[in-house]
Amino acid sequence: MKIVIVMCSKIDLNKVEPAINILKEYGVETIVRCLSAHRAHKELANFINECNNNETEVIIAAAGMAAALPGVIAAQTVIPVIGVPISGANLEGMDALLSIVQMPSGIPVATVAIDGSKNAAYLALEILGVKYQEIKNKLVELRKNMEAEALKADAEVNSKF
Amino acid sequence: MKIVIVMCSKIDLNKVEPAINILKEYGVETIVRCLSAHRAHKELANFINECNNNETEVIIAAAGMAAALPGVIAAQTVIPVIGVPISGANLEGMDALLSIVQMPSGIPVATVAIDGSKNAAYLALEILGVKYQEIKNKLVELRKNMEAEALKADAEVNSKF
Amino acid sequence: MKIVIVMCSKIDLNKVEPAINILKEYGVETIVRCLSAHRAHKELANFINECNNNETEVIIAAAGMAAALPGVIAAQTVIPVIGVPISGANLEGMDALLSIVQMPSGIPVATVAIDGSKNAAYLALEILGVKYQEIKNKLVELRKNMEAEALKADAEVNSKF
Amino acid sequence: MKIVIVMCSKIDLNKVEPAINILKEYGVETIVRCLSAHRAHKELANFINECNNNETEVIIAAAGMAAALPGVIAAQTVIPVIGVPISGANLEGMDALLSIVQMPSGIPVATVAIDGSKNAAYLALEILGVKYQEIKNKLVELRKNMEAEALKADAEVNSKF
Amino acid sequence: MKIVIVMCSKIDLNKVEPAINILKEYGVETIVRCLSAHRAHKELANFINECNNNETEVIIAAAGMAAALPGVIAAQTVIPVIGVPISGANLEGMDALLSIVQMPSGIPVATVAIDGSKNAAYLALEILGVKYQEIKNKLVELRKNMEAEALKADAEVNSKF
Amino acid sequence: MKIVIVMCSKIDLNKVEPAINILKEYGVETIVRCLSAHRAHKELANFINECNNNETEVIIAAAGMAAALPGVIAAQTVIPVIGVPISGANLEGMDALLSIVQMPSGIPVATVAIDGSKNAAYLALEILGVKYQEIKNKLVELRKNMEAEALKADAEVNSKF
Amino acid sequence: MKIVIVMCSKIDLNKVEPAINILKEYGVETIVRCLSAHRAHKELANFINECNNNETEVIIAAAGMAAALPGVIAAQTVIPVIGVPISGANLEGMDALLSIVQMPSGIPVATVAIDGSKNAAYLALEILGVKYQEIKNKLVELRKNMEAEALKADAEVNSKF
Amino acid sequence: MKIVIVMCSKIDLNKVEPAINILKEYGVETIVRCLSAHRAHKELANFINECNNNETEVIIAAAGMAAALPGVIAAQTVIPVIGVPISGANLEGMDALLSIVQMPSGIPVATVAIDGSKNAAYLALEILGVKYQEIKNKLVELRKNMEAEALKADAEVNSKF
Repeated sequence: MKIVIVMCSKIDLNKVEPAINILKEYGVETIVRCLSAHRAHKELANFINECNNNETEVIIAAAGMAAALPGVIAAQTVIPVIGVPISGANLEGMDALLSIVQMPSGIPVATVAIDGSKNAAYLALEILGVKYQEIKNKLVELRKNMEAEALKADAEVNSKF
Repeated sequence: MKIVIVMCSKIDLNKVEPAINILKEYGVETIVRCLSAHRAHKELANFINECNNNETEVIIAAAGMAAALPGVIAAQTVIPVIGVPISGANLEGMDALLSIVQMPSGIPVATVAIDGSKNAAYLALEILGVKYQEIKNKLVELRKNMEAEALKADAEVNSKF
Repeated sequence: MKIVIVMCSKIDLNKVEPAINILKEYGVETIVRCLSAHRAHKELANFINECNNNETEVIIAAAGMAAALPGVIAAQTVIPVIGVPISGANLEGMDALLSIVQMPSGIPVATVAIDGSKNAAYLALEILGVKYQEIKNKLVELRKNMEAEALKADAEVNSKF
Repeated sequence: MKIVIVMCSKIDLNKVEPAINILKEYGVETIVRCLSAHRAHKELANFINECNNNETEVIIAAAGMAAALPGVIAAQTVIPVIGVPISGANLEGMDALLSIVQMPSGIPVATVAIDGSKNAAYLALEILGVKYQEIKNKLVELRKNMEAEALKADAEVNSKF
Repeated sequence: MKIVIVMCSKIDLNKVEPAINILKEYGVETIVRCLSAHRAHKELANFINECNNNETEVIIAAAGMAAALPGVIAAQTVIPVIGVPISGANLEGMDALLSIVQMPSGIPVATVAIDGSKNAAYLALEILGVKYQEIKNKLVELRKNMEAEALKADAEVNSKF
Repeated sequence: MKIVIVMCSKIDLNKVEPAINILKEYGVETIVRCLSAHRAHKELANFINECNNNETEVIIAAAGMAAALPGVIAAQTVIPVIGVPISGANLEGMDALLSIVQMPSGIPVATVAIDGSKNAAYLALEILGVKYQEIKNKLVELRKNMEAEALKADAEVNSKF
Repeated sequence: MKIVIVMCSKIDLNKVEPAINILKEYGVETIVRCLSAHRAHKELANFINECNNNETEVIIAAAGMAAALPGVIAAQTVIPVIGVPISGANLEGMDALLSIVQMPSGIPVATVAIDGSKNAAYLALEILGVKYQEIKNKLVELRKNMEAEALKADAEVNSKF
Repeated sequence: MKIVIVMCSKIDLNKVEPAINILKEYGVETIVRCLSAHRAHKELANFINECNNNETEVIIAAAGMAAALPGVIAAQTVIPVIGVPISGANLEGMDALLSIVQMPSGIPVATVAIDGSKNAAYLALEILGVKYQEIKNKLVELRKNMEAEALKADAEVNSKF
């Protein structure tokens, strides 16, 4: 099991790290790269080519502003690409969201919420879960834990009033 | 290989049909349902339960306005859910886009472009491609055809001026 | 008289508390729950069922981002549901507003302002006031007090210049 | 049982008529007025005063652009006011939506979707249902019918593919 | 010469004060009131009536969120009304801007920038200037001073590089 | 009494004509020009200069897209300038609205609704009304007629149901 | 003198043609290509490489939705790249505008208005004009003609009222 | 080689300074002015006239809110004008972006990202590069350095996980 996470710029690392941590918890081999579609396009192309030839199963791409990265990767592979719009100084990530989600027919990017790198990781795991029953089982477990935590929070809130 | 497509309302069928046709072309068993999260929630829950217990591998959910359907499905399964925001009478699908993509942590929805049902189908196929090499191969083929068509269009345009 | 307040996540409690306080001041029995439509859907369904069978008269639901909670509740009851869009890290609550207010025909949600939990409480009281004259009387009183306070503020401002 | 529907301008009548029809079907006495907060403010004030003194139980107010009508009515009564943003020539109703939903604390307006007059009627009926069991029963019935119709549509769609 | 400034809420005073100061500098009698269209509508109506009968020549109205105040005043007078959209906790004043500027035909509000109370004062002075040559002369003077200051700033910036 | 109407482009004439007609009905001398801030800036400057030296009392400026015209005029005069944002092919006039209303301190533009040329005329008349009692009287009359028409429409609607 | 125009899709040709016509009128060699950043990325890279090695002086790139094309070209060349956002079925080109204009530091794209291909041509000519005096002279001439036409339209409009 | 940078207000200097620094590094003569289209229009016109008669080759114009400056300059010259939308207190620069980019046909402004003054400098250099091979060479060098830095950041990030 092998997932790749690419971000546009080192500044985005703190917004991407939660995804890395989730994937590592699930024991998924996770390659992390920082390759801008605009500033390192040649190395990016090399790297996508590599992904196409090794066992990479999902690619997560996080980018802000005119966020071309997820789409540019998607254009060069049929591996599922998950796009994470990163919010920046202005427009609160609306620019990145539209730049990532509004892909033309034929080249899909699976877009998650603005700054939603955790969900990018969970979506990647769900995709792996289609193939690997053990991942699917762990996700079912996770949901049970999430539910248990939710119910605990509910009990807390409910008892407070 | 089994994919499920759920839409909110019969009116959306013409926007969803391109996805159905693509999946059928690829020989994927495709179940099509029309189950609103708001008007048929019980049957929806039953159906998601069914999906969890049969071999459903990807779920595509198309919805407009306060488009809860993809998120509600995602909440009840760990099967990857692809959300298609459908544009309606007002706001040009921006309401549906935000209602689908801005999911909270833990329950991802893979969102595609507004009215982007074709890409929902291609994304579903890419997800199947992680598991089934024959689908991946067909997608690689598709990309080559897409590229060939693109180059043909380019030649046409280029020669015109 | 019985009102239910449901929020999506414990983090929203501080934005919801003003509503709780108002309802308690009016002597209305107020049940407070923290049940995400996405992370605790089964317990949420149980709870809505309970509401349908006890004397719950209004339900207030507060949620952020792809705020499905108010609509999901509304789909399972004919008790009036008031939705409060909660602003989060990005988009200033516009995502939650559209996710709550743009409901399809047949399943209404009475939406108030972004982070407007106080008005959710007042709206709930107005709905109770249709049935209970004493609540209506108290609201008429409240408006008089609000007006008196407003006129006091006016006098202060007016005399300052 | 008495409900009032106020619209801003005669042009909006065709967008408001579905609400009138629904209320009439339910046997609710329905007064329909066309009173702009801007062009007929005196008669509007008189009329709200009247509503406060007769048995009016819910007021539905539909308005477009800088849609002050619902808020202006809400300011003069503690009867629940439901606001319907009407879309016009530009901005697709976003102006009306924000003008109606973003009410200050103390004066709530129960806002429904842009051009969502049907849901205004259903919400009004739900509010009546808090007081009148027969209305609540009819709404429960309606939901069953809606569900039945939804399932019929589902069967149709499902069998088609 | 008499100008009236009305604000919705005491909280807005600091955003309105620059307008008051400018008008006082120009020796214009300035009445400052704090009268919400929603919370003090009766006193507001009385006050507008008063304005209609004393020598009030321009009314400035500042309001946030579903900012009905300027339009409600405009509906009750033919004195020119200048609207100042005030930004609040969410949506950065876009709600107030649309609620003020998108007035229906027949009842205009002269809208200035979000939080633009200074320009409301200058616009009020320009309107007075149509009638009072001395105000017009002072404004011509002001523009010369503004230009002089602008040129000084230009010289400073220009010499720095 | 003299009012000037400037539009950016001949295409906008049909959107501006209602303002011209209203002003003519009121017997106000109305100069109509078509002078783009971008394509005829020299003649525009000449013309503004002329306005400053003849008896022009209000200037109405209508423009679409990056609608600089009203602000550019306002920068060269202390005559009140009313800006009318014109909607075009895309963005429904939001670009023009923001380009006109968001003026910097010192140079106000009195902005009306998108495509709101009628209200530009009425606002211009209200400004004249500050100086000319006969115009003010006519506007008071107009409001009475508007109210009468509104009440007639109300009676019609009311009797229909 | 050599300018390149690249569009994303053949459908955009009618929106791009005005630019081609303008450039041809000015006697500029104009290469027209149809190369999607997403569907023909390899040929696009080859072509940009070619541009870098022949005498291409400006590149115009038109694209809609998640319009990566202009930025992707800009990333591979230091030839000035002009981006034209193309409006599509939804969102009126706002998605394309933000995807093109919000470029990260170091890789600029000179963005023009939505569907503004004519201005892309004029901007390209202005850039050529920096180097070629004859182009600059023609543009000065054009402006004179534009002004003359504008004055003619002004005379027409002015005389009509 | 001569570039002009004009800003609207001294407050914007810190947002414009990165552009100045880049141009100075490249040895380009850089004139910096602070000339509002609204507050110093006469001096601005004089200065543009000067630019038209000296060797100015590119003009960068930065402005916020109803940002008329770049368009007003563009209207008076055929020198390429680059517009930088500056974000202010509200709306995060969306007002400035639309006011700058949505120019009418015939008068283009090359718009860069909100607060994107660095890219304005790089775009100016690219335009100079069309004429001056040494600038083009330096930009090619810069891109190599940018790429090297990007790869260094990539190595750092990659090795960390």
